[in-house]
Amino acid sequence: MPQSATRQRIFLAPAPRAVGDIFDSDDLAQLRALGDLIVHEAGPVTDEQFNSISGDTAIIIGQIDLPESRLKKAPCLRAVFNVEGNFLPNVDYVYCFRNGIRVLGIGPVFAEPVAEAALGMAIDLARGITRSDRNFREGIEEYGLAANREAFSLFRQNVGFVGLGDLGRAILPLLQPFHCHIRAYDPWLPEEYLRTLGCDAASLDEVFRLSQVVFVVAGVTSDNQEFLGSQHFSQMPSGAALVLVSRAAVVDFDSLVDFARRGRIRVATDVFPQEPLLAAHPARQSGNILLCAHQAGALDAAIRQIGKMVVADVKLILRGLPPVLCKSAQPETVSLFRSKPVAKT
Amino acid sequence: MPQSATRQRIFLAPAPRAVGDIFDSDDLAQLRALGDLIVHEAGPVTDEQFNSISGDTAIIIGQIDLPESRLKKAPCLRAVFNVEGNFLPNVDYVYCFRNGIRVLGIGPVFAEPVAEAALGMAIDLARGITRSDRNFREGIEEYGLAANREAFSLFRQNVGFVGLGDLGRAILPLLQPFHCHIRAYDPWLPEEYLRTLGCDAASLDEVFRLSQVVFVVAGVTSDNQEFLGSQHFSQMPSGAALVLVSRAAVVDFDSLVDFARRGRIRVATDVFPQEPLLAAHPARQSGNILLCAHQAGALDAAIRQIGKMVVADVKLILRGLPPVLCKSAQPETVSLFRSKPVAKT
Amino acid sequence: MPQSATRQRIFLAPAPRAVGDIFDSDDLAQLRALGDLIVHEAGPVTDEQFNSISGDTAIIIGQIDLPESRLKKAPCLRAVFNVEGNFLPNVDYVYCFRNGIRVLGIGPVFAEPVAEAALGMAIDLARGITRSDRNFREGIEEYGLAANREAFSLFRQNVGFVGLGDLGRAILPLLQPFHCHIRAYDPWLPEEYLRTLGCDAASLDEVFRLSQVVFVVAGVTSDNQEFLGSQHFSQMPSGAALVLVSRAAVVDFDSLVDFARRGRIRVATDVFPQEPLLAAHPARQSGNILLCAHQAGALDAAIRQIGKMVVADVKLILRGLPPVLCKSAQPETVSLFRSKPVAKT
Amino acid sequence: MPQSATRQRIFLAPAPRAVGDIFDSDDLAQLRALGDLIVHEAGPVTDEQFNSISGDTAIIIGQIDLPESRLKKAPCLRAVFNVEGNFLPNVDYVYCFRNGIRVLGIGPVFAEPVAEAALGMAIDLARGITRSDRNFREGIEEYGLAANREAFSLFRQNVGFVGLGDLGRAILPLLQPFHCHIRAYDPWLPEEYLRTLGCDAASLDEVFRLSQVVFVVAGVTSDNQEFLGSQHFSQMPSGAALVLVSRAAVVDFDSLVDFARRGRIRVATDVFPQEPLLAAHPARQSGNILLCAHQAGALDAAIRQIGKMVVADVKLILRGLPPVLCKSAQPETVSLFRSKPVAKT
Repeated sequence: MPQSATRQRIFLAPAPRAVGDIFDSDDLAQLRALGDLIVHEAGPVTDEQFNSISGDTAIIIGQIDLPESRLKKAPCLRAVFNVEGNFLPNVDYVYCFRNGIRVLGIGPVFAEPVAEAALGMAIDLARGITRSDRNFREGIEEYGLAANREAFSLFRQNVGFVGLGDLGRAILPLLQPFHCHIRAYDPWLPEEYLRTLGCDAASLDEVFRLSQVVFVVAGVTSDNQEFLGSQHFSQMPSGAALVLVSRAAVVDFDSLVDFARRGRIRVATDVFPQEPLLAAHPARQSGNILLCAHQAGALDAAIRQIGKMVVADVKLILRGLPPVLCKSAQPETVSLFRSKPVAKT
Repeated sequence: MPQSATRQRIFLAPAPRAVGDIFDSDDLAQLRALGDLIVHEAGPVTDEQFNSISGDTAIIIGQIDLPESRLKKAPCLRAVFNVEGNFLPNVDYVYCFRNGIRVLGIGPVFAEPVAEAALGMAIDLARGITRSDRNFREGIEEYGLAANREAFSLFRQNVGFVGLGDLGRAILPLLQPFHCHIRAYDPWLPEEYLRTLGCDAASLDEVFRLSQVVFVVAGVTSDNQEFLGSQHFSQMPSGAALVLVSRAAVVDFDSLVDFARRGRIRVATDVFPQEPLLAAHPARQSGNILLCAHQAGALDAAIRQIGKMVVADVKLILRGLPPVLCKSAQPETVSLFRSKPVAKT
Repeated sequence: MPQSATRQRIFLAPAPRAVGDIFDSDDLAQLRALGDLIVHEAGPVTDEQFNSISGDTAIIIGQIDLPESRLKKAPCLRAVFNVEGNFLPNVDYVYCFRNGIRVLGIGPVFAEPVAEAALGMAIDLARGITRSDRNFREGIEEYGLAANREAFSLFRQNVGFVGLGDLGRAILPLLQPFHCHIRAYDPWLPEEYLRTLGCDAASLDEVFRLSQVVFVVAGVTSDNQEFLGSQHFSQMPSGAALVLVSRAAVVDFDSLVDFARRGRIRVATDVFPQEPLLAAHPARQSGNILLCAHQAGALDAAIRQIGKMVVADVKLILRGLPPVLCKSAQPETVSLFRSKPVAKT
Repeated sequence: MPQSATRQRIFLAPAPRAVGDIFDSDDLAQLRALGDLIVHEAGPVTDEQFNSISGDTAIIIGQIDLPESRLKKAPCLRAVFNVEGNFLPNVDYVYCFRNGIRVLGIGPVFAEPVAEAALGMAIDLARGITRSDRNFREGIEEYGLAANREAFSLFRQNVGFVGLGDLGRAILPLLQPFHCHIRAYDPWLPEEYLRTLGCDAASLDEVFRLSQVVFVVAGVTSDNQEFLGSQHFSQMPSGAALVLVSRAAVVDFDSLVDFARRGRIRVATDVFPQEPLLAAHPARQSGNILLCAHQAGALDAAIRQIGKMVVADVKLILRGLPPVLCKSAQPETVSLFRSKPVAKT
């Protein structure tokens, strides 16, 4: 196994995350055993500060600015770990790809908690759980069959996905025991591949027209801002459910809220065009919308997992092996993503 | 295959259910093809009415009174289908067992929808879904990590079951993708059997002390009224969740509500000691209780499934074969169950 | 929980099995703790012997003769455990059913090992494993693609079942990762039930005509001796595979061997009309038949499991609860089975 | 979605595979619709031939020599598809990585068939299937328990993996229904990652000492030639099974055969240091070795899948998207692999 002979530098500057949020003392001890660890938590990294450490830095952990001018001064650099969650335009990716520098993200850590929340939200819409609880507090609940006039079950249901990246693929195993028929629209994935995941490839129209539950899990790219609108929502079966857990920017949010308020469909969303949501936003009044406060992924257990993933992959990289837990930025797609960084999610 | 030579009588008197709620026209056509179908929907079945049909009745579908005096007048009777949901003291079970008359129940039809609701309620408590929605409506929601201070995930969690009958066993496959460590207390099931289900046998105390989520899915028997009380709830880890979906009578309900109100544990319940719940009941005010209105099983799709199960099993029985979809009453346990019939659940 | 006040007698006479084959010392200690254990291993149980213990015997473990005349002398008898594997005509079942005496079998213990062997045999036929090994020993093996001219994979294959009792249902989970399309013929099981198992109900003809692999797992009844013959085998696709692991008596064995010898289909069988198979039997010469010596179920680990199942269910029965690990004889079907007892399988 | 404006050239020279073996007419039609397809089947590609097409070639499918001198003349090249199965030293990988040229392999197509064969071989060794068939042909078979004296089951067994790359990971789902305890040694994969696959990380010694079945599925690298030898085999429990399906070069083959011949362990192998195996090789005589003729992966259905994978990924690449079905060569590891190309496997 290739082994590094001299000690290498690891530069840790994870803002906006705090070191202590993502690395526990054991994680830090492991990093220290791997190389010369420099921790930077005091504001942005100045050029002077960068230059003082760049010469023998092999690993950078954080979202610091890395234009070509800086990268050129880091000849030993092998990997940059983004620990925020989205690939941002802070790095000259082309330079990195040309020079064998891995740019890695910790997005996979959020897939499980978001999938769990998405399933919970889907069952909630289907079975009227939050609605029932609200009725109890208003003293207007009905019981049994009367409570279930509009309820449906996920078992053997027609389910659709818009996007089937890491997040969607994390929802699939949770749906497996429900024996759903799953259609997926994802323009980046061929039919053959979707079939290996147990899904039928479908057009956007088919997904909306034929699904009783639609999971919107597409990331935002430069191409797909607000690409889902009334022309899609209007095709959904009456009373069908839409669960939005990726980014609000992929939908025409006002239209989505409008369809729910009119009772046409049921909607659950964990994301909003603006956070906090306006106090007077009509979504707050509708009984057909389930509102979650961007909490699907931001689970403490997920955040604490970040440090462990990074440490494990740093170890592999310093041994000359490919990382396996973090996600490598891909030359073809990294420039397409346009997620706004969201504070600490 | 044994085949009945002469046409047999099928007596259908499903009150309190309506014929049309559980049998569609195709189901009824199939029953008519199997025998001489007599439908009784007009009030209780009098002795006179019973005597006029009992002589050549092979199948009774419904919860009519069947004391020994009546059963003796039905020499061809092979099976009684209870379509309400609980085995009630309306039948002389001992007579039936001695005389090879199957008494069958349609309880299995409710297992899937109740399991789905129970999973939804568990995710809701763990992830704070209904709570978040309520906060939005009060304009006090927090976002991201701040919203998740007390959230936890079901993934790889310690989960406990009190009771592991049909209902509990229907929850297990839904939990499988979450890779939980599952402990189960069920005094009717040996350790070996629980292990084949992927669960560790545990004492009641262990279930409560070691589980972050406890599913209470035990049926009510003559022995276990209110067998779960403060001595159990007090052992739960702080912030742990209890999901009650079988019968309220198995818990000390006031104590349960009290533990939730004090913020000691989180509770979700689909059942109540009295329905409707008193308007002034303190459960209605607590932010730590998720209230569902006895709607976990009473799903239209489940009710409509009853007729199909019954028709399929009537066919088998009239061919001299054992039923496979309905549940046969067991001599050892039928007398132990003490569920109050709940109108049409 | 109901508990027996006085000690009850347990009579253990498991011939043709030896006590030590199925019960280890811990199992026996547990039986002794449950009641007054009498072990009988010296030949058949005479009436005199039976009468001397019958008065207060609650549990009989073994295949001793139990006609009405004996059963009448056992007023405390609650259960008879057949530990051989097949329900035999040694017991007056009707008397038992009328008098609330459970007759239990340990058949389920063989389901897993037989299913494992059946899967291994199916993969062997599909992929030519034994054939390849035989070629090596004759020095005529070909490699790679040349070795695989007639090979096929189970992945996403059309698979058929003849019979879907305990044994067939134990094969289903092993096939799940292969994503097969499964058709099943079982006249005792309704379409609705087969669908819950993930199978399509099919006619016998459809099973044979549309399946690349057919598992014959039907038990022998008084009705189905040799019910599978050339009219079925001739419908199979050329080169399709048939795996027989239940009883040879359900097929026209000569015809089956003939189809394999002519290269029309591939056959694997674990059972034979006569054991040992005649030295000159043509099956021994055919390269298209995989021969296993009735070894699919007779696994040591399975045999040793018998004692544990029996002890666990004896415990439940003596507490007044229904058994859950052994299989209860059913009034409708017990008289239909006609398996010859097979020495110690 | 980015779309290519001008038609691009696709150069198809798949020797040693024939075009018709991997692409059907529909696949070829799709390639033609994507670009200007040039098919080369007549011997090696000369520099002159290469130069005549390199200027506007975007995709090369095949294992032609691609040193820097040629790659420099292909400024539009985006991807090279190796359709043989192993990454060979025919390509200047460093040049490709620096210049954003994907080098892709079709190895994943063999994972399923090899996994299926490996499972079949493991069940065969555990249950003595081929051995039983051989005994029948020699007329020395024993039946039932007597046949099973040394048999064991995979259910709940201790299983070990040496290597857990694509191939090992394809075996895992097939083992899932057997509920095994799985230990894996893979120096390229961290403990955290193995745990997500349901395996415990283990040392080589632990894998051999604690497993009843060991799957050797490690690829050959420059570091691990014959890294498994008598020091490992001697630690295996007596009668344990070893299944070798990756490359013979990772084991000391003579030692492996010796352990099997002495009856110490059971061995199944699909690969040999030299193919064909010497006529006088002692492996041909041992009853404890199951010999398969490099046929685990070389399944017709797998070969035909190659074309479909390549076409689907070519489509993605020409749209500016990352491939998802083929495997991208990784800078860190591509130089480590040292598999000899095996004709058409």
